[in-house]
Amino acid sequence: MLNYDAGQGEWSNWLVTETGFDPAHQGKGEAVLSIGNGYMGLRSATDENYVGQVRNWFVAGTFNKFDEHEVTELPNAADVTELSITLNGETFSLEKGRTISYSRQLNLKNGELTRNVVWQSPTGESFELQFRRFVSLSNRHLVGSSVSIKPLDGQARVHIASGINGQWTNSGAQHFTEGEKRIFEKTYIQMTSTTTQSVVDFVTNTVHHWQLNGAKVEPELRQTMGRRKVGIEGTVTVEAGQSVTLEKISNVHTSRDLVYNNGGYSLEQMRESALTELKQESQKGYDQLFRESANAWADTWSTYNIEVDSTSGYDQLAIRFAIYHLVIMTPAHDNRMGIGAKGLSGEGYKGHSFWDTEIFILPFFIYSNPKIARSLLEYRYQGLDGARSKAKENGFEGAMYPWEAAWIEDGEVTPVWGDVDIVTGEQTKIWSGFIEQHITSDIAYAVWHYVQSTGDEAFMDQYGYEIIFDTATFWASRLEWDENKGRYHINEVVGPDEYKEHVDNNAFTNHMAHFNMELAIQYYEKLQQEKPELLKALSAKLDLTSAREAWNKLDQMYLPGPNEQGLIPQDDTYLQKKVIDLTPYKNQTKVASIFNDYNLDQVGEMQISKQADIMMLFFLLENKFEPDIKRANYDYYEEKTLHDSSLSLSTHSILASDFGNRPLAYDLFRRASEIDLGPHMHSSDAGIHSASLGGIWECVVMGFAGVRMLDGQLHLDPKLPESWSSLKFPLYWQNQLLHITITAEGILIESDAEEEISLLLSGQQVTFSKRFQTLV
Amino acid sequence: MLNYDAGQGEWSNWLVTETGFDPAHQGKGEAVLSIGNGYMGLRSATDENYVGQVRNWFVAGTFNKFDEHEVTELPNAADVTELSITLNGETFSLEKGRTISYSRQLNLKNGELTRNVVWQSPTGESFELQFRRFVSLSNRHLVGSSVSIKPLDGQARVHIASGINGQWTNSGAQHFTEGEKRIFEKTYIQMTSTTTQSVVDFVTNTVHHWQLNGAKVEPELRQTMGRRKVGIEGTVTVEAGQSVTLEKISNVHTSRDLVYNNGGYSLEQMRESALTELKQESQKGYDQLFRESANAWADTWSTYNIEVDSTSGYDQLAIRFAIYHLVIMTPAHDNRMGIGAKGLSGEGYKGHSFWDTEIFILPFFIYSNPKIARSLLEYRYQGLDGARSKAKENGFEGAMYPWEAAWIEDGEVTPVWGDVDIVTGEQTKIWSGFIEQHITSDIAYAVWHYVQSTGDEAFMDQYGYEIIFDTATFWASRLEWDENKGRYHINEVVGPDEYKEHVDNNAFTNHMAHFNMELAIQYYEKLQQEKPELLKALSAKLDLTSAREAWNKLDQMYLPGPNEQGLIPQDDTYLQKKVIDLTPYKNQTKVASIFNDYNLDQVGEMQISKQADIMMLFFLLENKFEPDIKRANYDYYEEKTLHDSSLSLSTHSILASDFGNRPLAYDLFRRASEIDLGPHMHSSDAGIHSASLGGIWECVVMGFAGVRMLDGQLHLDPKLPESWSSLKFPLYWQNQLLHITITAEGILIESDAEEEISLLLSGQQVTFSKRFQTLV
Repeated sequence: MLNYDAGQGEWSNWLVTETGFDPAHQGKGEAVLSIGNGYMGLRSATDENYVGQVRNWFVAGTFNKFDEHEVTELPNAADVTELSITLNGETFSLEKGRTISYSRQLNLKNGELTRNVVWQSPTGESFELQFRRFVSLSNRHLVGSSVSIKPLDGQARVHIASGINGQWTNSGAQHFTEGEKRIFEKTYIQMTSTTTQSVVDFVTNTVHHWQLNGAKVEPELRQTMGRRKVGIEGTVTVEAGQSVTLEKISNVHTSRDLVYNNGGYSLEQMRESALTELKQESQKGYDQLFRESANAWADTWSTYNIEVDSTSGYDQLAIRFAIYHLVIMTPAHDNRMGIGAKGLSGEGYKGHSFWDTEIFILPFFIYSNPKIARSLLEYRYQGLDGARSKAKENGFEGAMYPWEAAWIEDGEVTPVWGDVDIVTGEQTKIWSGFIEQHITSDIAYAVWHYVQSTGDEAFMDQYGYEIIFDTATFWASRLEWDENKGRYHINEVVGPDEYKEHVDNNAFTNHMAHFNMELAIQYYEKLQQEKPELLKALSAKLDLTSAREAWNKLDQMYLPGPNEQGLIPQDDTYLQKKVIDLTPYKNQTKVASIFNDYNLDQVGEMQISKQADIMMLFFLLENKFEPDIKRANYDYYEEKTLHDSSLSLSTHSILASDFGNRPLAYDLFRRASEIDLGPHMHSSDAGIHSASLGGIWECVVMGFAGVRMLDGQLHLDPKLPESWSSLKFPLYWQNQLLHITITAEGILIESDAEEEISLLLSGQQVTFSKRFQTLV
Repeated sequence: MLNYDAGQGEWSNWLVTETGFDPAHQGKGEAVLSIGNGYMGLRSATDENYVGQVRNWFVAGTFNKFDEHEVTELPNAADVTELSITLNGETFSLEKGRTISYSRQLNLKNGELTRNVVWQSPTGESFELQFRRFVSLSNRHLVGSSVSIKPLDGQARVHIASGINGQWTNSGAQHFTEGEKRIFEKTYIQMTSTTTQSVVDFVTNTVHHWQLNGAKVEPELRQTMGRRKVGIEGTVTVEAGQSVTLEKISNVHTSRDLVYNNGGYSLEQMRESALTELKQESQKGYDQLFRESANAWADTWSTYNIEVDSTSGYDQLAIRFAIYHLVIMTPAHDNRMGIGAKGLSGEGYKGHSFWDTEIFILPFFIYSNPKIARSLLEYRYQGLDGARSKAKENGFEGAMYPWEAAWIEDGEVTPVWGDVDIVTGEQTKIWSGFIEQHITSDIAYAVWHYVQSTGDEAFMDQYGYEIIFDTATFWASRLEWDENKGRYHINEVVGPDEYKEHVDNNAFTNHMAHFNMELAIQYYEKLQQEKPELLKALSAKLDLTSAREAWNKLDQMYLPGPNEQGLIPQDDTYLQKKVIDLTPYKNQTKVASIFNDYNLDQVGEMQISKQADIMMLFFLLENKFEPDIKRANYDYYEEKTLHDSSLSLSTHSILASDFGNRPLAYDLFRRASEIDLGPHMHSSDAGIHSASLGGIWECVVMGFAGVRMLDGQLHLDPKLPESWSSLKFPLYWQNQLLHITITAEGILIESDAEEEISLLLSGQQVTFSKRFQTLV
């Protein structure tokens, strides 16, 4: 139903095309073709309604909690995209009549979503309909949409009901108190609403412009108001071959916007200011507003452009698709906001941030746009208070980051209950919020990764040390002394592999905690020598004297290592568990098919992994393990891994690149890209997979190009897939922008600045300025 | 789309049939064919979902307020009727493929809703589907539904997803906190939920039984849980000509149920008790449960049976339709609950009770089932505290009843904002809750009507006097002294005609207030003589000494009377207002079409009436006005009345009967019946029209048969429509059940009891016992 090769010339490998409409599979197109700008995300529900449609519009950071029994989530805002179109008395719907042609396209290059339909109504009259829609990248509050309708067979009465509809919910949870509905000058429509618990005001405006054959026309108009609804209905008589166009320019402002949040704005002033903006902007019309946004997209693509020469154009498109979504999911404008696990493209995971950001997405920004990476880490800094509260509530010290994070003040927001337990008939308890604790060291790792790659000492001084010290303090307090073994353990956790709950000494968790504490000691010592004043200030805040003492526990910490077969046990009991044939559950169209036959307790008793666990450890701390150990473990665990998490395939692909297994690495890259782009029509229903999209960039840049930061050094170790003849990508290193071109013939590195650049190229130290080239 | 003559033999004039499915007009069938039992009302949304569908399930009295800015309303409970049916991979939907035959029928006699469809899927395979559904009249918590599917062309995989879905809202307002979802024994499904503000617990259970050709079969089953959802998916392979049946038996209990409300039940006990009930009941199967309910319907019809011999069978059906809905809308089981203006058939008017109950519906119960009439008045008695609070808040004394009433403790619940004002673009303010005050005397009138007709002195002692005294006290405090005219006025009100707001001396309001005070004085004097102890007790509670003094103001009260033209001014300014040609706005398919051209302020400046106002006064206080005055005013005001309220036509019909204009009376009766049954496909979208349905009974019994209680006497003054050869109806009078038969040849009255009956028959006093017959 989706194809990727419709683009020709300028648009080659830029177009994602939906070739037919299937009401049973709307989620796919809604999520994959969603549009946005990081401030807002607009899921691409069709203008007309269908059963099964999920119409979502999210504004980043506007979290609200429905009630005390639920966790906070991004509320689904009042909609401006819905149109009810009636053509000579027949409501336009692709479920009836005959669809003569259909094509819906997301243009990744300019951010426009278009849909072209020729539809024959049940009475036999044909119409050509063209829909266009964009979320502006140049004015973050703005949405433009347009529909043109041309009757092909004879005169038609075209009736369109449009407006603002606040009846939509998050799967039944209504997050808004209805405010005022208003039509100004019979033209501008405004609705205000306020989130019920977090008290965030939303002001939504829209205006309609009607044209007949490109000239302004006044339709017969009716103003309408209903519960949580305000709109207009317009009717125009159109001759055969004429075209009537309805342009709709809309905006949304919320009291979380920095401009309102920091000042003493009243709701009245917000309304005035948002309406004034709409009045001014809408004068420009759809085309001009769209051009402004498309120009901003052009700038964006010049920042992130990766060029691939592959025998399959799809590879280029898949990379662009990943970057497109990384751009629209990221609230780069506001460091009080993180990235949702489904971006802003669906209700899944409620807009919450997981380790997905730090481990799968942050590298993209560290190496492509470090300012945004910094903003994302500042978000985590602002979450420290919540992390400290969580530690305290759990009887620990320091900062224990929430498994799921939402608004900076919220602390832990992981829901407690999940899907059905097929054995007990109860909801399955979700343990991640309680005991999936590696997120804390993942964030410390990310801070280190960022600063090592950028050299942003100012960030460290202001935020970074505090995060690293206080997370290390958490781990020190978290360690449990085992009297028998005479060492520290970390018991009763969930590691990255979420099919194993309540395990002791998860290898990933232990190693990363150790890394976190080790890092704290290193930085502590560095500050002692280089910045004693800063250390003193931090000590006053964090009681670093006793913390430093506690970190020493790492010396007596149990770090799972290879056994006689060279296998690192994923946890204390994994390797003793039953092994079953997983063939029936691998590569299913639906992930987690194992739960049709077993419940989580039963799966927990077998050697079955949801996702990369030990492999993730190998990727993050690659220096700590020998290549042959990695290979042996890869072979062992890959067999047991269902890749039921979208965080899994890309990691395996990178490791395959590390091993030099190019066909496998490429195959895993393709499979990872198909998590959203593939033929599984329900995999993206709840939204695209943010981490997987970051993972695609990682497969390419960290896998195929072998970019890595090790011991503060930039490494490049290209192993292009056999079908790729070249790969070109931008890369920031220590505040320098490099342009790297890898071909079968050799490697070219260019730098925009004069400074000397030093890196390890396939193990060889090279130093240059401006330009470096090597031929095979 | 609806027809009424499908019933043959036993079912003649009992079947309301929807002959085709139109997704643009679902509201009509949903409301008109809705089912219920007074405890609950289930709107007849189709099993499968369509855009535009409104799926409602209300349990009487469970009001909840979404937030402080809204008024309380009946919350839309978690649904048990939705099915998603997939036949060989194609989702069943009448919007696609081909509908070869379609018929949906509500059987008014046994309360069953059935739907028979032959559907050809887009792939060309045909299926016969039969749906059945009932709400039990014998076990008020119970709903039965069933679908049988027969593939006609070949083997088919039949997949049905079913369960309990709590994602539904009231037009976007979610009233429930999600509770626990649970599947017991892989069979019984339970969901608990609690209203957010009123904290009413709901326990919903359902169980699925599968049969193949009538024999039990085990489908391939999958258990599912989602947000606010729990269910199962079952798949069965069916050969051509075989039939697979899914029976679903469901129940709902709420903590408002008297059994839980009065005792110290915990939610756990409620869950246990509701589940146990479902387990026991569901053993019986759909057919047996339906038979039990049908038997209860048979008893009900023997109570309310009206038989008409008309040249048009529709007349008989329309009366049955009215009575059917009067039965299912009335929470006869619980005197803490009133009747909603849309019954339990839609979200319109939020389940609130208006004067509709006392003036349009109560007479049906007074004369057909006085126990229920009493329960409805007890509901008003329990609302006295709220009425006293409202009086106090408005600076008055006594009891000022809310224009809209919900839960007994709620007081005034009329919303403040309505539809768009086309001139200002703001929402129109609804003044009824502030100044439509005649509801208070309407309730006093109803108490009097009830007791005069039933002789229920016990009710008066316990409840009635208190209502009448305290409402009279309100009016005494409400009167305003006009120094110039030297008399009391009632200024700044809305009368029954809601197109005139802020008027002075609305004739209906003034006369009814006067009646209320007059009644209080009469009863006060009666109690002085007959029950001084009771008067003393009431005096202690209500300070009757000063109240009695205040009631005397009625002597100086202005009661609008006929002017020189014999016209009673509807209010002080009505007759001076502009008159326009109302032809374009009369008999429109959509009521209130005048607001497409004018706003309410503008309509208020013209002689335009929404509904009967003076006519209502003539009906209620018919002794106070001379026949020629009534005629003159009828002719004058009828011209100005748009009948934009469903409370209008029936009153005009009764007056036409009173005038002896049989063709007009019959025509108005037919038009009144068409408010719900007529061809206007959107008139019932928000629910059926309770008052109008009561009005249909009034047209027949109080209009055509001329039944009236005047000065404590029963009057009978038949004026059958010319097309009717006989009318037979039951009538309670002073606790005696009379069976009245009116034919062209004469009148027969039979009594079940021995006591002497006395009545005025067409003005002649007759007295008899057991049987009276007169021939023309």
